[in-house]
Amino acid sequence: MDNRPSPTAPFWKRNIYRVVFEADTRAGQLFDILLLLAIVLSVLAVMLESVSSINAQYGPALRVVEWVFTGVFLVEYLMRLLVVRRPLHYALSWLGLVDLLAVVPSLLALVMVGSRYLLVVRTVRLLRVFRIFKLGQFIGEGEFILSALKASRFKILVFLSSLFTLAILMGTFMYVLEGGENGFTSIPKSVYWAVVTLTTVGYGDISPTTILGQTLATLLMIMGYAIIAVPTGIVSAQMSRNAAASATAAAGAAAAVAEATAAPAAPAYKQARCPRCQSAGHRPDAGFCWNCGGPV
Amino acid sequence: MDNRPSPTAPFWKRNIYRVVFEADTRAGQLFDILLLLAIVLSVLAVMLESVSSINAQYGPALRVVEWVFTGVFLVEYLMRLLVVRRPLHYALSWLGLVDLLAVVPSLLALVMVGSRYLLVVRTVRLLRVFRIFKLGQFIGEGEFILSALKASRFKILVFLSSLFTLAILMGTFMYVLEGGENGFTSIPKSVYWAVVTLTTVGYGDISPTTILGQTLATLLMIMGYAIIAVPTGIVSAQMSRNAAASATAAAGAAAAVAEATAAPAAPAYKQARCPRCQSAGHRPDAGFCWNCGGPV
Amino acid sequence: MDNRPSPTAPFWKRNIYRVVFEADTRAGQLFDILLLLAIVLSVLAVMLESVSSINAQYGPALRVVEWVFTGVFLVEYLMRLLVVRRPLHYALSWLGLVDLLAVVPSLLALVMVGSRYLLVVRTVRLLRVFRIFKLGQFIGEGEFILSALKASRFKILVFLSSLFTLAILMGTFMYVLEGGENGFTSIPKSVYWAVVTLTTVGYGDISPTTILGQTLATLLMIMGYAIIAVPTGIVSAQMSRNAAASATAAAGAAAAVAEATAAPAAPAYKQARCPRCQSAGHRPDAGFCWNCGGPV
Amino acid sequence: MDNRPSPTAPFWKRNIYRVVFEADTRAGQLFDILLLLAIVLSVLAVMLESVSSINAQYGPALRVVEWVFTGVFLVEYLMRLLVVRRPLHYALSWLGLVDLLAVVPSLLALVMVGSRYLLVVRTVRLLRVFRIFKLGQFIGEGEFILSALKASRFKILVFLSSLFTLAILMGTFMYVLEGGENGFTSIPKSVYWAVVTLTTVGYGDISPTTILGQTLATLLMIMGYAIIAVPTGIVSAQMSRNAAASATAAAGAAAAVAEATAAPAAPAYKQARCPRCQSAGHRPDAGFCWNCGGPV
Repeated sequence: MDNRPSPTAPFWKRNIYRVVFEADTRAGQLFDILLLLAIVLSVLAVMLESVSSINAQYGPALRVVEWVFTGVFLVEYLMRLLVVRRPLHYALSWLGLVDLLAVVPSLLALVMVGSRYLLVVRTVRLLRVFRIFKLGQFIGEGEFILSALKASRFKILVFLSSLFTLAILMGTFMYVLEGGENGFTSIPKSVYWAVVTLTTVGYGDISPTTILGQTLATLLMIMGYAIIAVPTGIVSAQMSRNAAASATAAAGAAAAVAEATAAPAAPAYKQARCPRCQSAGHRPDAGFCWNCGGPV
Repeated sequence: MDNRPSPTAPFWKRNIYRVVFEADTRAGQLFDILLLLAIVLSVLAVMLESVSSINAQYGPALRVVEWVFTGVFLVEYLMRLLVVRRPLHYALSWLGLVDLLAVVPSLLALVMVGSRYLLVVRTVRLLRVFRIFKLGQFIGEGEFILSALKASRFKILVFLSSLFTLAILMGTFMYVLEGGENGFTSIPKSVYWAVVTLTTVGYGDISPTTILGQTLATLLMIMGYAIIAVPTGIVSAQMSRNAAASATAAAGAAAAVAEATAAPAAPAYKQARCPRCQSAGHRPDAGFCWNCGGPV
Repeated sequence: MDNRPSPTAPFWKRNIYRVVFEADTRAGQLFDILLLLAIVLSVLAVMLESVSSINAQYGPALRVVEWVFTGVFLVEYLMRLLVVRRPLHYALSWLGLVDLLAVVPSLLALVMVGSRYLLVVRTVRLLRVFRIFKLGQFIGEGEFILSALKASRFKILVFLSSLFTLAILMGTFMYVLEGGENGFTSIPKSVYWAVVTLTTVGYGDISPTTILGQTLATLLMIMGYAIIAVPTGIVSAQMSRNAAASATAAAGAAAAVAEATAAPAAPAYKQARCPRCQSAGHRPDAGFCWNCGGPV
Repeated sequence: MDNRPSPTAPFWKRNIYRVVFEADTRAGQLFDILLLLAIVLSVLAVMLESVSSINAQYGPALRVVEWVFTGVFLVEYLMRLLVVRRPLHYALSWLGLVDLLAVVPSLLALVMVGSRYLLVVRTVRLLRVFRIFKLGQFIGEGEFILSALKASRFKILVFLSSLFTLAILMGTFMYVLEGGENGFTSIPKSVYWAVVTLTTVGYGDISPTTILGQTLATLLMIMGYAIIAVPTGIVSAQMSRNAAASATAAAGAAAAVAEATAAPAAPAYKQARCPRCQSAGHRPDAGFCWNCGGPV
């Protein structure tokens, strides 16, 4: 991120950088608030244009609004390119691509009909503006959630693949049981139904009508209801583990102090923690974790 | 809240205050129970009146009931105004406004048709009556829930804005994929569908019919199913943190005692001072100043 | 429960008691398994009889089955009455009433048509039969769940009344917004819709059609999605609290041992815990909690 | 699992075993990736064949694909049988049966129409291929989830039987209340509706229409919403318990060290020896042997 103009850059460059990229001056904060407004209004314009009754009446006006905003975002994008030290580095960064995406669809729509709707991608830019509010706070919370999800990614992968396997198996059984005349016209559609049921969404566009099918659906629903506890448990466990880790650390501190007080210290526990469950307090000669049985 | 009549106020004023505002006498409790009944019955009357078959038969009677209750609540409101020490302070307090709202819609309905239904706002007054039961208990529990929500407000804000961004993006993709003939007639409607799906409500008033649309919907559902773990995890984590805090505290006590036994005790307190009152000597894991209660 | 026949009762009485009421003999276990079968089969018979196509074919047979089971349960009930020491005490106990309810509806159906379906109340008797499996285990787990729910009953009450208040308010707004022609024909029906939406059930029998209504519904759904975290958090917090309690206890033990080793114990932390978050380890002169900032 | 060919087996046997059964060589990993692809493609072919429009166009081609994959899996199965030391042991193992199931339905379909769809059982084989990725990690996570579910199996059983009892009782009440003309045509169908409602799936294929029915449904939904907290709580509690266990352990370590400083040290280790390797000196709260990693 250290792409700020060099201290020897012209004054206006450094000034624009502070306004456009940072939020610690009054001008910078005002810029961010205006940008926020522009993003919300431009996305709203695209959304409203798709409503046929509104389009019939205000269509041309909305299209003008759209082009104005595209112009504004284009100018902003060029300005950002201009003031950073290494323009290419910015252009290829994640944020740079998002900034570009806010402009491209309008231009693309001149060639390809329908691509204009991609303008809603601009909503993603909202994330950029979070820093008007307490930046650290927001980023911190976002990272907290992401890191909890990341730490549980293997568990979530195992969970999702079990879910899909279950959905494919149950969907196929229902396809055989209920058949096409009750809406289960193909296996992919039946798998779609199984996911709709397992996740407790339950549109009701397809639903079982035979007694056997309803019994199987009942089982599937209860399964879905029971296993919804699993992702929640996974994330909560990750949180609890963090919480417990800090408790463990505090207790470990107690142990350390107590150790210091003892003159002829008895051979205490191993320093290392279990790489799998993070529990401490292993025998110095232990080969396996007393808590989870994994190697230490 | 210390708006009670001055000790030199006439006896009847102080007496009515105790009955109307407090619940520690038998008369006060009886008053609260009658008020509870009146609120429930009056809301029920408004609700029943909206049912056309009941309105056809009992309409006039229900309207009489409504006016009687409006009269009762008006008398109660005036009485409250009369006995408090500073009437304006009460009238502008949150509870005072709620008490007023229980009366206004009926009067407003004389001028503006349809505003009568606002009378259901009276249900909010139920919260006032909680104090017949163990007041402290209820308020305490409510505060426990609220403080957990408050402590996680940034996380919840980040979570909700990600949810909305996801809904807008997915809704637009579905609008392009499925098109108007399958019910996805506009982007706002498609975003509405995306929220219906993500939250696992699943009305089924709009649902995908093409294979591509159903595949995308499947992804969205599983996402919704997975991220339902996040708000739960956020709140649970807040709880766990409190729980862990107390465990940490206990372990900390062990450390402190052990420390006391050691001759050259290491510095046990935080280096930093309180930014508000400049006091030192905070626990290393303290989040609040022991002296002024401000954040450290 | 100590309603066993006196030791001086005739041998057959004490024997039947052991078989009918207890499950520690082979005969007692066999009796329980047969009873389990009888309950499941009799409930199944009542359920199948209500299916018109099955009733047309096997109706008379099913009615015979029903009467046979009623006879069996009547004999069982009388036998239980006969062998206990204080028959009235058993008859008025919770289990005694459930045993009676398994018989009454059949007899009642001779007088009152339709009451026969109450026979499904027999399913409740299944709970009696749990003791064939490891009784203590089951009762223990059931009590664990119940005690967690009981400990959170105030929180749940506060939560439910807030939920109802929200549903009544939102339902009324939708009634005013959408009106009868879109299915929101009365306030009670709209409140029903609001509960269907808040709980993420989402039948779709009523759903908003105006843009304003769909926007409000979107808000309601996200609220429902967010507050589903609350009951989960409440129960989990109760569990975490128990878990933390045991950790605290262990840490306390550590403290106790450490204390015992120290000769001249220095003044440690305050004895009192924070009344708000229950954390310990405050400075003796602390005025505020280091963890939550509340007064101590 | 120790079914590898004896060291004296011919070289090609041992070589094929390493490729087919293990994933620690480049060839073994390539084999697993190809197998993964074959499974996904073959399941996809079965699924697509069931879509009538695709079947009309590509039916014969898809059937050829199916037979090719059946041939491939048959060869693979025979190869596995050939190289293991004890073929019968492999054939009767869980994984062996799954491998066989990937072949049988195609052959069965020659005799019995419709059994071909059982080929989707092949998805279960995906679990076999997890070991291309970090095997230990995946298995570990899967075991973590499973062990948490296993530890709570009694609680889940109690919970599910209460759920079913509730569904049967409520379903019957609704059957009596709403009757056949509103879709509640039989008790089994009404119980199906009750489960659809309790689990918050809410298809809407059956939904109450009378005011009384909707009131009862409202109660049921709120119950379902409240008790969804229970399975989540159960699993989370299991996790918290583990987390607390490690905290307790650390605190225990502090206690142990402190104890060591005291003159007459109490016996700090468990009395019992490891049932597998007979080693002594386990922590009092150890769940696994420090020496061999087996359960103690």
